[in-house]
Amino acid sequence: MPSLTLLQKLRVDYRPKLPKVLQQLDALVATNAPDQVHSKVASEILSYFPILFNQPILSFSSQTAIKHQPKRVGVVLSGGQAAGGHNVIIGLHDALKKLHPKSCLFGFKNGPNGIVNNQLIELTSELLNAYRNQGGFDLIGSGRTKIESAEQFQAALNTVQALDLDGLVIIGGDDSNTNAALLAEYFLQKGCKTKVVGVPKTIDGDLKNEQIEISFGFDTASKIYSEIIGNLMRDTLSAQKSYYFIKLMGRAASHLNLECALQTHPNLALISEELAADQMTLQDVIEKIADLICKRALLGKEYGVILIPEGVIEFIPEFKQLIEALNELLAPGQLHAAEMDALTTLSEKVKYIHKKLEKSSADCFERIPAEIQTQLLLDRDPHGNVQVAKIETERLLIEMVKQELKKRKSSGKYVGKFSAQPHYCGYEGRSGMPSNFDAQYCYALGYVAALLIESGATGYMSCVQHLTKPVEEWTIVGIPLVSMMAMEQRRGKSKPVIRKALVDLKGSLFKAFKEQRDAWALEDAYRFTGPMQFFGPPELTEAITFTLAYEHA
Amino acid sequence: MPSLTLLQKLRVDYRPKLPKVLQQLDALVATNAPDQVHSKVASEILSYFPILFNQPILSFSSQTAIKHQPKRVGVVLSGGQAAGGHNVIIGLHDALKKLHPKSCLFGFKNGPNGIVNNQLIELTSELLNAYRNQGGFDLIGSGRTKIESAEQFQAALNTVQALDLDGLVIIGGDDSNTNAALLAEYFLQKGCKTKVVGVPKTIDGDLKNEQIEISFGFDTASKIYSEIIGNLMRDTLSAQKSYYFIKLMGRAASHLNLECALQTHPNLALISEELAADQMTLQDVIEKIADLICKRALLGKEYGVILIPEGVIEFIPEFKQLIEALNELLAPGQLHAAEMDALTTLSEKVKYIHKKLEKSSADCFERIPAEIQTQLLLDRDPHGNVQVAKIETERLLIEMVKQELKKRKSSGKYVGKFSAQPHYCGYEGRSGMPSNFDAQYCYALGYVAALLIESGATGYMSCVQHLTKPVEEWTIVGIPLVSMMAMEQRRGKSKPVIRKALVDLKGSLFKAFKEQRDAWALEDAYRFTGPMQFFGPPELTEAITFTLAYEHA
Repeated sequence: MPSLTLLQKLRVDYRPKLPKVLQQLDALVATNAPDQVHSKVASEILSYFPILFNQPILSFSSQTAIKHQPKRVGVVLSGGQAAGGHNVIIGLHDALKKLHPKSCLFGFKNGPNGIVNNQLIELTSELLNAYRNQGGFDLIGSGRTKIESAEQFQAALNTVQALDLDGLVIIGGDDSNTNAALLAEYFLQKGCKTKVVGVPKTIDGDLKNEQIEISFGFDTASKIYSEIIGNLMRDTLSAQKSYYFIKLMGRAASHLNLECALQTHPNLALISEELAADQMTLQDVIEKIADLICKRALLGKEYGVILIPEGVIEFIPEFKQLIEALNELLAPGQLHAAEMDALTTLSEKVKYIHKKLEKSSADCFERIPAEIQTQLLLDRDPHGNVQVAKIETERLLIEMVKQELKKRKSSGKYVGKFSAQPHYCGYEGRSGMPSNFDAQYCYALGYVAALLIESGATGYMSCVQHLTKPVEEWTIVGIPLVSMMAMEQRRGKSKPVIRKALVDLKGSLFKAFKEQRDAWALEDAYRFTGPMQFFGPPELTEAITFTLAYEHA
Repeated sequence: MPSLTLLQKLRVDYRPKLPKVLQQLDALVATNAPDQVHSKVASEILSYFPILFNQPILSFSSQTAIKHQPKRVGVVLSGGQAAGGHNVIIGLHDALKKLHPKSCLFGFKNGPNGIVNNQLIELTSELLNAYRNQGGFDLIGSGRTKIESAEQFQAALNTVQALDLDGLVIIGGDDSNTNAALLAEYFLQKGCKTKVVGVPKTIDGDLKNEQIEISFGFDTASKIYSEIIGNLMRDTLSAQKSYYFIKLMGRAASHLNLECALQTHPNLALISEELAADQMTLQDVIEKIADLICKRALLGKEYGVILIPEGVIEFIPEFKQLIEALNELLAPGQLHAAEMDALTTLSEKVKYIHKKLEKSSADCFERIPAEIQTQLLLDRDPHGNVQVAKIETERLLIEMVKQELKKRKSSGKYVGKFSAQPHYCGYEGRSGMPSNFDAQYCYALGYVAALLIESGATGYMSCVQHLTKPVEEWTIVGIPLVSMMAMEQRRGKSKPVIRKALVDLKGSLFKAFKEQRDAWALEDAYRFTGPMQFFGPPELTEAITFTLAYEHA
């Protein structure tokens, strides 16, 4: 660990506020929550979770004179980074030590692989201190390994038994928490004492439901992106000569895009879920953008800002089909893959594959710019799949809008000079220092995870509620992981998975956006949120997202 | 103006501290500075500036009972944005009003073009208030027009005379301030009373010299970029699977790259000036990067962060030659341009132009990836010139390093899996809210500009010195614009221009970098500066750059 910067040091000294309920930690015991009921779980799920099926939501009540025993707990970070991960671990550690000073916390290294391979370090106060309220996952690393095979499950069991673990905390997104539930069930079936508890992590904001108000990392990412978007708005408002096409991380769902739109008031923000609901084609989307540009040109405005969610192309049916067709054609070991490899120039490759596509996909392929054709053909993962996250949608849209405007210009429907800049709000948003909200939320999530293990609960997700209220008034519960599941098709098989939350087109948040966006299109109502502040008045440093405020008003 | 965000409002209420000397503004009068002498100006410059040649540096002394008259002053923003521009204007306004409440300030719209076309607005307190300590140049816009032709000079004269201006303040970089000097000389020759004063602006940090310690905007840009770089470092340190190739804005000079390197400790930071001094070829640079990656791979580290200055390729001789050759071959109206237009596919164009290049340029062209070949051939400005700033050097280097590592792999010299992500730290750095340093520096620069005009000085640059000291101890002078000039070749003609400061390879700043960088290469000494803070302890909110600290220790 190199020397800390001044801000890092000041953040190390920052103490997250604790919800009032967590202030008498050692008196709390989990009990059935009489006032909270989760929705009914599909009966097909029973066969996967014979023991965990239909667990109740847990709340916590105060009891006197509980005798705590030392606990041995493991923790793992799974999947992409989100601001606050270190604070979950530190909250977990601090709570375990408060419950019993002889308790131990171990960190599995580099994701679930660390469980399978039994690679870990003990997490002591001394080690953890420098990571308090810091970004990243570098304390123990993370990884994307899924524990899927029978061998992997057995190896995980061997590890937790060898370490004599009372609990295992899995910090991850929907997939990782589905995995946590499978592990919990497996351990129960094998008579293993290790309790498995999940923590909801993802900047995408798609791991939420009736009980989980928001996943951690979303707040920080939306603040980092909003600053950058605001700066680019100020830039183009000053220079008045180009359009910024800004793509935002966020995988499938458009939550980050919607939040940042409400924060910054762009001229246009695409919401994938809405495009899908309206059955928009790629050409429709291009025309929508071109229409905006033409209208603004009539007002003398040849600049603007357009927000694009990372996952948008998967919501446009023809593009999705094209990707699927390419994945099939170019699967490794297939005839076409070999033929393609034999061709030397890119244009030969493009011609070859174009002929193999069905008409609608061929048309779509033909219309996209050469740069993106290249990405589709060359940037493929080891399974031969197009790497959707790597497709530069912002550049794709710019090129296609350029073509559309050229067409309109030649028919006299557009008089202007279109210039555009792509920008990607990406990895810098997931690894920044956590906002005060995320720092406090994560610290509390760690506490609740410790309490769940202490109470002997397994197959639960750590959950903090009433997040729109002051921290002191936050409440805590344990949510059965199975209660969040539905059966979904994954690689041709029906499987129980934790549902991803997409943008609710009928919700108050989307409604608020819809009511304002027409004004934003032509006026320049840009909002500049500036860099996230850790010091200053509480209205500034404790501000919550619009997403949370509207969804839990 | 849309509604302000909370942080914007709080920034509106922020009051820049004033240097002590500026606190009794109305007693100050400019006098020759006995203790400051500028370096000798080349005699060829005399013919361009017969009146302004050899003006002395001005300092300010206190006198009693000065009677101030109302003044009419115009201000213009010229060139790219830099954080703090609004504060210069507001400082100028506040000082003028303090000197005489009936003074008026006018803002020319959209850059020097606004002077030529007499487009302006009056800048009142009411209008200015919302822009206090805010980013961007959107109050009056900016532009890149140069006042060059006889007609333009005449039009500018007509404007300032029609408005009866006592002063004209030009906020800009080296070129704009050269222009300011030419205007000042021209006005004097025409017997026009309007005094012309320049203000040193540019995030690139290349407008500095013995007297000008730093240009405004550099501080903020370096802080915004350092945050992003730090986040990406934390990201790759956590995931440990890819190299970030981060290109930083900054045109020709590598000042921003050097400052951000000292702030964040990357594994490698290219400094264009050093590559040029060492006569590095493109292949040398690629090998330097590949060497680093191979060494780190031996330590089990397949990740890292590399900083690339925007202007680097212009410092690599073979690439510079290639660009010049392409500019010549593809000049509009030339035979080759027409032939190229007639070719339909990109690969035909590439083949065509490849044959026309001389061997060394052809070799260079051949080795660069198709994506960049496309940019060189297609992204050309109206004069047919390659747009150097648009060349995605970060992608160019990634592709070429990939090829180099493939070669090393096949010969057994590299065992690893190279994966890389490009990132561009660009426009978001110039348009952010100014740091406290820039907010205060700019406000003071505005004050000094007002004082220079009040004192009847023309052809001067507003200058604030001792910037490493607390604001209260900052000192003020006026520097003759002509004193910063040298004769340089511009488009084949020798012209007087304000010298651009490149990185001083013998300076203490570069030395500090050189001493530490070997350790940064293999250890991960990453530093995370986090988001710029406006509130909190003064060590945090008033921190100056390493550049300023070392250069003026």
